[in-house]
Amino acid sequence: MPSEKADPQTLHEAMRYAALDGGKRLRPLLVLAASELGETDPIALEHAMAAVELIHVYSLVHDDMPAMDNDSLRRGKPTCHVQYGEATALLAGDALQTLAFDVLSQPTNLPPARQLKMMSVLAQASGSLGMAGGQAIDLANVGLPMTQTELEHMHSLKTGALIRAAVVLGALSCTDVNDGDIERLDHYARKLGLAFQVIDDVLDCEADTATLGKTAGKDADNNKPTYVKLMGLAEARHYAETLVEEAVALLNPFGDKADRLRSLALFVTERKN
Amino acid sequence: MPSEKADPQTLHEAMRYAALDGGKRLRPLLVLAASELGETDPIALEHAMAAVELIHVYSLVHDDMPAMDNDSLRRGKPTCHVQYGEATALLAGDALQTLAFDVLSQPTNLPPARQLKMMSVLAQASGSLGMAGGQAIDLANVGLPMTQTELEHMHSLKTGALIRAAVVLGALSCTDVNDGDIERLDHYARKLGLAFQVIDDVLDCEADTATLGKTAGKDADNNKPTYVKLMGLAEARHYAETLVEEAVALLNPFGDKADRLRSLALFVTERKN
Repeated sequence: MPSEKADPQTLHEAMRYAALDGGKRLRPLLVLAASELGETDPIALEHAMAAVELIHVYSLVHDDMPAMDNDSLRRGKPTCHVQYGEATALLAGDALQTLAFDVLSQPTNLPPARQLKMMSVLAQASGSLGMAGGQAIDLANVGLPMTQTELEHMHSLKTGALIRAAVVLGALSCTDVNDGDIERLDHYARKLGLAFQVIDDVLDCEADTATLGKTAGKDADNNKPTYVKLMGLAEARHYAETLVEEAVALLNPFGDKADRLRSLALFVTERKN
Repeated sequence: MPSEKADPQTLHEAMRYAALDGGKRLRPLLVLAASELGETDPIALEHAMAAVELIHVYSLVHDDMPAMDNDSLRRGKPTCHVQYGEATALLAGDALQTLAFDVLSQPTNLPPARQLKMMSVLAQASGSLGMAGGQAIDLANVGLPMTQTELEHMHSLKTGALIRAAVVLGALSCTDVNDGDIERLDHYARKLGLAFQVIDDVLDCEADTATLGKTAGKDADNNKPTYVKLMGLAEARHYAETLVEEAVALLNPFGDKADRLRSLALFVTERKN
């Protein structure tokens, strides 16, 4: 991340404002946790952790803009466009996305072919058939009824794709990972990503704005379909807990090495923001 | 580029609308022309051509948005946000950028380390120290006087960085390129990129909207610093022609193989839009 003293200063300030201060850092923690299943290259690991967070943060900056969710609070601070104006926020989001791929293209001790695979995984999770596609489906369905299947498809792209990519990138940063392990981890991450979103909907109803660090009750106000509307608060929480149990069960073959992945799964249902 | 029948359809329609119809395709032509200096891998070449155009198009979509230049006409058609709404245009630009890196990460016959180098070149040309940085400087200086040095610095990032990347990527798609050649080509591309921008300013004054395919006189109306304001119309055109002559002279050691690069340089000063 360029210094805020580097020209153009305002752009770099805005990028740092959005990316460096606050947030749960769930996605980089998932990269780290998955990397503990094998022998990892620390440089590649660090690059992958940074890259997934940069993609996540760019998506938040753009999502919060008036043309999208029009939100004014994020991670307990004014959103990037409120602080720096819309034009700078647009460019900051753009440049944060570019930086994700820049970081991931830098030299590591992994074979270059593996690094290319990691870039492909991140790009496909982020693009029109992944995260950006999920946001488009979300926008297109404001005020419309959605079945649980449709809602899950939307979230599997909007938040699920990047969470899965985080776990897979962590595994790919290991020198001794096999395809079967990656498939199992991907399955774990699918369930975890879904649970994460269900709890997001629960917290949007239950928590207050100060705890969330973003505007509470926003989805209801925006007339967005949510799991809470679909199945009620208690049932939604129960569904998330079941998903997490299933996700954790998938980690059994990995033994102790998966302890951090287990903890993160539990964190997802127990979190307050 | 996903089909417009692929879900989410509106997003894919918007991406295709912005990218596939019209434009001079100068950047992919520069990739192609530079690749003729050596033995190229056709798959890598095609990926690089697509990637630079995708980055260029994403930047046009976001640049045209109300928060930035607020333009309604591009390549002779309504701009993406006029046609599809701001939210979809924002996401389409985002996803076009992602697609550029996705394409470039796909397998080719080049050594993977070379492909990583190409991804790094493209990312650095596009990010906050390249194209996005140039746009930020542009925005910050609307209505302010700029010296020629400041103006050239701004354009060297805003349009120059991607034009240089296009030429360098073309050379990197060759299996038999050397660093000295790349440095010479980069020097050529610097001069060409600058000439391109000077002519852009000339055309903004001289041409009509129908010929340009975008709103004529926009820079003057937006109170933006231009070469025409700085040095006058005739002198600006003369400056561009001198730059192109210098660029073409740099190609002498390459002989006939650089003919297409020579033609493209001449096209830059002779173009009408």
